[in-house]
Amino acid sequence: MRANLLVAQSGGPSAAINATVSGVAEFGLVSNNVDKILGAVNGIQGVLNENFIELCDVLSSPRNMQLLCQTPAAALGSCRLKLADVDKDETIYEKIVSIFRKHNIGYFVYIGGNDSMDTVRKLSLYIEKKGIEDIKVMGAPKTIDNDLSLTDHCPGFGSAAKYIATTFTELERDRAVYNDQSITVVEVMGRNAGWLTAASILAKENGGHGPQLIYLCEKPLSKEKFIEDVKREMKKSLHVIIAVSEGVKDEDGRYLSESVQSGDEDVFGHKYISGVANVLGDIIRENISGAKVRAIELNLMQRCSARNASLTDIYESRMLGQKAASCAIEGKTGRMAAVERISNNPYKVRYIDVDVAKVANLEKTVPLEWITEDGCQVTEEMLEYLRPLIQGEVNMTFINGTPEHIRLY
Amino acid sequence: MRANLLVAQSGGPSAAINATVSGVAEFGLVSNNVDKILGAVNGIQGVLNENFIELCDVLSSPRNMQLLCQTPAAALGSCRLKLADVDKDETIYEKIVSIFRKHNIGYFVYIGGNDSMDTVRKLSLYIEKKGIEDIKVMGAPKTIDNDLSLTDHCPGFGSAAKYIATTFTELERDRAVYNDQSITVVEVMGRNAGWLTAASILAKENGGHGPQLIYLCEKPLSKEKFIEDVKREMKKSLHVIIAVSEGVKDEDGRYLSESVQSGDEDVFGHKYISGVANVLGDIIRENISGAKVRAIELNLMQRCSARNASLTDIYESRMLGQKAASCAIEGKTGRMAAVERISNNPYKVRYIDVDVAKVANLEKTVPLEWITEDGCQVTEEMLEYLRPLIQGEVNMTFINGTPEHIRLY
Repeated sequence: MRANLLVAQSGGPSAAINATVSGVAEFGLVSNNVDKILGAVNGIQGVLNENFIELCDVLSSPRNMQLLCQTPAAALGSCRLKLADVDKDETIYEKIVSIFRKHNIGYFVYIGGNDSMDTVRKLSLYIEKKGIEDIKVMGAPKTIDNDLSLTDHCPGFGSAAKYIATTFTELERDRAVYNDQSITVVEVMGRNAGWLTAASILAKENGGHGPQLIYLCEKPLSKEKFIEDVKREMKKSLHVIIAVSEGVKDEDGRYLSESVQSGDEDVFGHKYISGVANVLGDIIRENISGAKVRAIELNLMQRCSARNASLTDIYESRMLGQKAASCAIEGKTGRMAAVERISNNPYKVRYIDVDVAKVANLEKTVPLEWITEDGCQVTEEMLEYLRPLIQGEVNMTFINGTPEHIRLY
Repeated sequence: MRANLLVAQSGGPSAAINATVSGVAEFGLVSNNVDKILGAVNGIQGVLNENFIELCDVLSSPRNMQLLCQTPAAALGSCRLKLADVDKDETIYEKIVSIFRKHNIGYFVYIGGNDSMDTVRKLSLYIEKKGIEDIKVMGAPKTIDNDLSLTDHCPGFGSAAKYIATTFTELERDRAVYNDQSITVVEVMGRNAGWLTAASILAKENGGHGPQLIYLCEKPLSKEKFIEDVKREMKKSLHVIIAVSEGVKDEDGRYLSESVQSGDEDVFGHKYISGVANVLGDIIRENISGAKVRAIELNLMQRCSARNASLTDIYESRMLGQKAASCAIEGKTGRMAAVERISNNPYKVRYIDVDVAKVANLEKTVPLEWITEDGCQVTEEMLEYLRPLIQGEVNMTFINGTPEHIRLY
């Protein structure tokens, strides 16, 4: 079946999501079954608005393809639209199918995280229910949170992990220059999954010490234990570095940041004056003396730093785009391209496709056995898992000393 | 005069200060007047503790020299010691001189910012006063703040500026993926000098928009004007990005962050719950509706990100180390190596030496004529000044996917 191939992006930005677009386009450019390659601007919202751009021309250029792979965020834009349940309201699905037909779109690859895979699932469900044969819908994974099931890891995670590893090793050098006691609390993204925070352990890979304390959101953290942990580490190290997931909760299941923020709210009328790093920093200041305390939030930099991208991540992200396009063109639908790890040493993977229904709306958190018993470190298994994902660097081009980016719209 | 050459580092870490050590060592390695090259650990404090390490061996290796140039922070450590006035108490100076003689140190290069140049000034003053002929003391500049007088710019600044330019351009891409209104306030280092914040304008260099609003600490900012500025920019741009110096003050000369923090102090008993980005973020939330607001602090990453180092900065930092060593060995004392800019297009500099007494304890702030009249942007002259300083990238080596660092002690 010869038709147009549509690609769109959704969910939060990352350093690798554009590489997946390039993979989809690459497959499209060599396939006999693909007529035009289209991009929808702002995800499924762009489909509904018929906001399509032609990608064949711009992406026929090797230079533009390279630029796309080194441009962070989402070159086709993103959206936050959640589709209604197929059983409840078919209107939006009818509209999407009619737009697809109007634009001769037979293959659709949607790149994103849990919510985007939910969109793929629902749309495929509708297509199956209606016996539609001329539209194939595939998901391609993307999330720095690394929380998608049935794939060994997620595009975007490796680059964010490499940023985190690099930043922790640089912070360690920064802190070490003075010879008075310091405590540095670094907040890493992750509301429910601690993968990114765990990646801080990679700062040991260059011979550094790595963070003395690592708290993932998978394990509750009591204030008392935290103070004990810090006091113990202060005896061993002049400079204590602490990595903490933004979503760490106390033993009652409340976000640590929330517990203090609710107090702030009464006084100032706003909630988000501080994240968990500030909260833990304050706990240290109030309970432990004799150390300089600093709280750092890695904030958006951890997801959009293309300068620190992992070659492995960018390469695999591109391959998953190819895999998703390949599956759609082979006639598969309602599935997600995924990575299966074959071995760690040497690192080998294969690209597979999995049932998107088993991925959508699920979160893969860190296995508790990869967190040490005392709850403040990760195990050697975690390190073995993480290490291959940050290997290799990406050569970038610059313009006037700043990274060169492509703008598709 | 043949003697040992001592080098030490002081002040805050940067991505370029180790390149200056490498320059000092390079000059020492080829000079007939230098016996051993020594490093003092933790600056002048290390001198007082006679905590010296031999550098000839380790730095004879080209690979180690490259590693030194790509390692951020301060490989010889830093200190915060301020020497007493020479007129008031000579004890410490007598001690330093006797230690120098004990270790046959004839040449001393001290790398640092204002406070370090004050140490160079005082020590030279003492040496001059006592008619000491066998010890020569030179300063080499270093500060990401770029606030030293008599030098066109300061080592470390160019790399921090490149980090800031890169980060703003990446944040701009990140913000642009959604099509609902956003306002992002990014706090940049600089208590009294706005050079680093001004560098955010370089995000325009790759074709990006650059921050719509740039507030340097040189100009007071009223809450009312800020709200007006933001409202005006929201009408023009879906995504407003604001760069602000941590040291921005209101019209009464009070730090903006302080004004809110003093309120916090009464309630919580601590001062540093939020920086100026959080304060401005809250002002927006309280006064302007209809936009997602995010506050970001670039924190220590802006001074220790070696991955984003500027080749120009690293090269010049090395040359300034050579210049300082060269001056000391020529018999100069009480002076600081500096950069004089000859032209912008093509960018040309020469390396000079200046009277350290005219540098110490002074701060070079941004000329008011380089800030636009409305106080929320910088001029074309500023851009012309900044542009050459971020040119070129540094090739780094990695180990297991993380940047390789050298450890000297």
